[in-house]
Amino acid sequence: MAKELTSRSENYSQWYIDLVNKADLAETSAVRGCMVIKPYGYAIWEKMQHELDRMFKETGHQNAYFPLFIPKSFLSKEASHVEGFAKECAVVTHYRLKTDATGKGVIVDPEAKLEEELIVRPTSETIIWNTYKNWIHSYRDLPILCNQWANVVRWEMRTRLFLRTAEFLWQEGHTAHATKEEALEEAMKMLNVYADFAENFMAIPVVKGVKSANERFAGAVETFCIEALMQDGKALQAGTSHFLGQNFAKAFDVKFINKENKEELVWATSWGVSTRLMGALIMTHSDDNGLVLPPNLAPYQVVIVPIYKDMTQLAAINEKADNIIAALRKRGISVKYDNADNKKPGWKFAEYELKGVPVRLAMGARDLENGTVEVARRDTLTKETVSVENIDAYVEELLKEIQKNIFQKALDYRASVTREVNSYEEFKVEIEKGGFLLCHWDGTPETEEKIKNETKATIRCIPLEGDKTPGKCMVTGKPSAQRVVFARAY
Amino acid sequence: MAKELTSRSENYSQWYIDLVNKADLAETSAVRGCMVIKPYGYAIWEKMQHELDRMFKETGHQNAYFPLFIPKSFLSKEASHVEGFAKECAVVTHYRLKTDATGKGVIVDPEAKLEEELIVRPTSETIIWNTYKNWIHSYRDLPILCNQWANVVRWEMRTRLFLRTAEFLWQEGHTAHATKEEALEEAMKMLNVYADFAENFMAIPVVKGVKSANERFAGAVETFCIEALMQDGKALQAGTSHFLGQNFAKAFDVKFINKENKEELVWATSWGVSTRLMGALIMTHSDDNGLVLPPNLAPYQVVIVPIYKDMTQLAAINEKADNIIAALRKRGISVKYDNADNKKPGWKFAEYELKGVPVRLAMGARDLENGTVEVARRDTLTKETVSVENIDAYVEELLKEIQKNIFQKALDYRASVTREVNSYEEFKVEIEKGGFLLCHWDGTPETEEKIKNETKATIRCIPLEGDKTPGKCMVTGKPSAQRVVFARAY
Repeated sequence: MAKELTSRSENYSQWYIDLVNKADLAETSAVRGCMVIKPYGYAIWEKMQHELDRMFKETGHQNAYFPLFIPKSFLSKEASHVEGFAKECAVVTHYRLKTDATGKGVIVDPEAKLEEELIVRPTSETIIWNTYKNWIHSYRDLPILCNQWANVVRWEMRTRLFLRTAEFLWQEGHTAHATKEEALEEAMKMLNVYADFAENFMAIPVVKGVKSANERFAGAVETFCIEALMQDGKALQAGTSHFLGQNFAKAFDVKFINKENKEELVWATSWGVSTRLMGALIMTHSDDNGLVLPPNLAPYQVVIVPIYKDMTQLAAINEKADNIIAALRKRGISVKYDNADNKKPGWKFAEYELKGVPVRLAMGARDLENGTVEVARRDTLTKETVSVENIDAYVEELLKEIQKNIFQKALDYRASVTREVNSYEEFKVEIEKGGFLLCHWDGTPETEEKIKNETKATIRCIPLEGDKTPGKCMVTGKPSAQRVVFARAY
Repeated sequence: MAKELTSRSENYSQWYIDLVNKADLAETSAVRGCMVIKPYGYAIWEKMQHELDRMFKETGHQNAYFPLFIPKSFLSKEASHVEGFAKECAVVTHYRLKTDATGKGVIVDPEAKLEEELIVRPTSETIIWNTYKNWIHSYRDLPILCNQWANVVRWEMRTRLFLRTAEFLWQEGHTAHATKEEALEEAMKMLNVYADFAENFMAIPVVKGVKSANERFAGAVETFCIEALMQDGKALQAGTSHFLGQNFAKAFDVKFINKENKEELVWATSWGVSTRLMGALIMTHSDDNGLVLPPNLAPYQVVIVPIYKDMTQLAAINEKADNIIAALRKRGISVKYDNADNKKPGWKFAEYELKGVPVRLAMGARDLENGTVEVARRDTLTKETVSVENIDAYVEELLKEIQKNIFQKALDYRASVTREVNSYEEFKVEIEKGGFLLCHWDGTPETEEKIKNETKATIRCIPLEGDKTPGKCMVTGKPSAQRVVFARAY
């Protein structure tokens, strides 16, 4: 088979690259660090967008659109924000090309230099808060609950398809509130939306937590996150929700008259998930045969492949398939019928396995005679022959079962590699095996930094739920309020 | 009323700016030429996207995503393409900022200069055809039917919200075909999709035609377009579909092995519509009271306003309104119920008029007694009192009637200002009055240029349908194959 993948055990990283390429999800482009998202990959991203957008709107948010460019001076207004993003900015300095005098093509026209350089947005807090300044005057103008779907650019030096690219697609919510409590509540609400989406659509179990100061978003007072665990034992931050306090309101002088007729600074949140989620989706569920997609996000949930010797047989199968397709669609199930004549069934089976289609139905002459159909599950790679009667109800149940099963599988895997570690010696041994290590930490950036430098592990988050028993830091022996999650991460 | 607009007769251009701002559609940003699309404006754009995306998918297209940046050398590969876009390019030259040694903020790090400058895409033919090169080997790989929803940047010197902005949102379809006939058929198919969308969703009548050489897309063999007419008598190009021949295949060396096992260059099309359509929508239907939205694109089609003296009355109206809302939603009609207590009904009436909500229902105490509701149409500004029984069916019909009526109104207006003109003397007089002038033209760029310089009128298109009688050019007297459409344009 031409499209064989490197196995995970052989080389996990190469397996990922092979899979992203061969399942037609994305590819590198001619532009350093930028990717091309191919139609099949984009169709999965569209499903994600669709569900998230619905969830945002159901929680009262509206979409808007803000400029791609940020004046350099805006980025500088919030000190820790510019500190965090300055090193990876694409900078527009000119606005015109002209023909080279030597006739060899085009050059940048030196006369078309911008007075102030523009940064291609790495995130939009600054341009948005500069806009909100004009929108907010009184408590009656609050809250503002905006989201935008956009591309952003961070000039990463080491890139990897979906996981870390110079340009990526994302959504960024930016909200403005009259009180601290309301802003904190919003940040938490969106964290819960993300966790709900990750677990119920992506079938990825996540730990909800708060970031340590070292891992906080540049400009945030508090960063909440959902952390997932990949099959190779490495963690992946799947979404963040920031409580920004009044930092950006201060930087852009955004004040409002409160109910007591006094002027106050506005409170803020921002929250985002990106095409990075595609990487999380791939690495959580897929196997050596290819993608495994959760039915809730698969571009098509079912593929039907006819198996025939001649056109008469095909015609008979087509007729039967048409009925099945109609019945499935009536239940809201998306189906692809692949009766293309230029590929063999075996090739098709391998192709749809590679592409992670949750359920495959195959029908041959004998099935026609017996009133049966062969049903194959992508998640377990098992097959069974079932009656064609009520196949639509059967498939509907099966899709639910698959959605549940791959979540449970990921949950079991995570449980199997999550353990408490009580000494730094043990930690150094255990971290090599991957997984989530639950350890006591004294809460200082210095200790976290030491651990990171010596073991490449970071604090993924301080969990919001679960065991809150205090203890002693595994490194310094100082008091620890609760165990935190350590891991090596993407 | 605080939100009064300049009237159209007083100052059409100021009326447009007032309307875009006061109806919360968009505003200028701190970045030269870039706009902020506000939530209400974006909601209309989302409705447009939704319908167009459905139409693209129904005609076999898939979405994908290609890089924001284009290497400068790519843009240069197709001679007329770079000629067309070089003068309005945002150019990225650096990829890092650093702290100024004087401590006064951040500066561009001179050491982080890109080897090759990157252009922020003004359109994506070059980066996409460079990608297609790797996707296309044999006729079996064809056709490729991709679309992308994206932002693009063209450094326009004179900008205007929605109509001409440095950054705008659009979709760009890029297709690859094995034969010239198939590519031409595709270009025409998408022109028809655009015309269908303009007329049946936007309620804007359009003329389908082909552009003269002067007005052709940079790099196209033939540009097809839909041309609309605004209320001030100026034309607006609402969408274009280009037959690109083999120009980009040649520039990027994209060949395929055909069925006869011979190598051939691939045939191409591209087609796009943008947020400019928002401008067309506003200028076609709106009046001195504000926006008039076609029901098929209105973020909410119906608004219900209660009129009450006390909370007991409000409670009774709320109960009745709930039933109406449920019945309307069941019919797929979107409704907003505005029972906010901090605004008076009169303020609300003016606000929803300004925002173009097609149907307004008002209910007061007397309506409760009589079992009636007041129905106001935005398009005609008429009101009537109807029975609350079957109000849902009534409104459903009314929305269809409004959609039809505003299209007919625009069609009638266009007919009233479209006329045949047979001499250049007459032309110079008539062009001052606006509208579409149907004239004979000798087919040369020189004559078109002369007319443009002397009258500011351009050939909007050579119509594909209608009268094809030959004649003599109004300027040179030379033979003309058919009348073409002249107008001043946005």
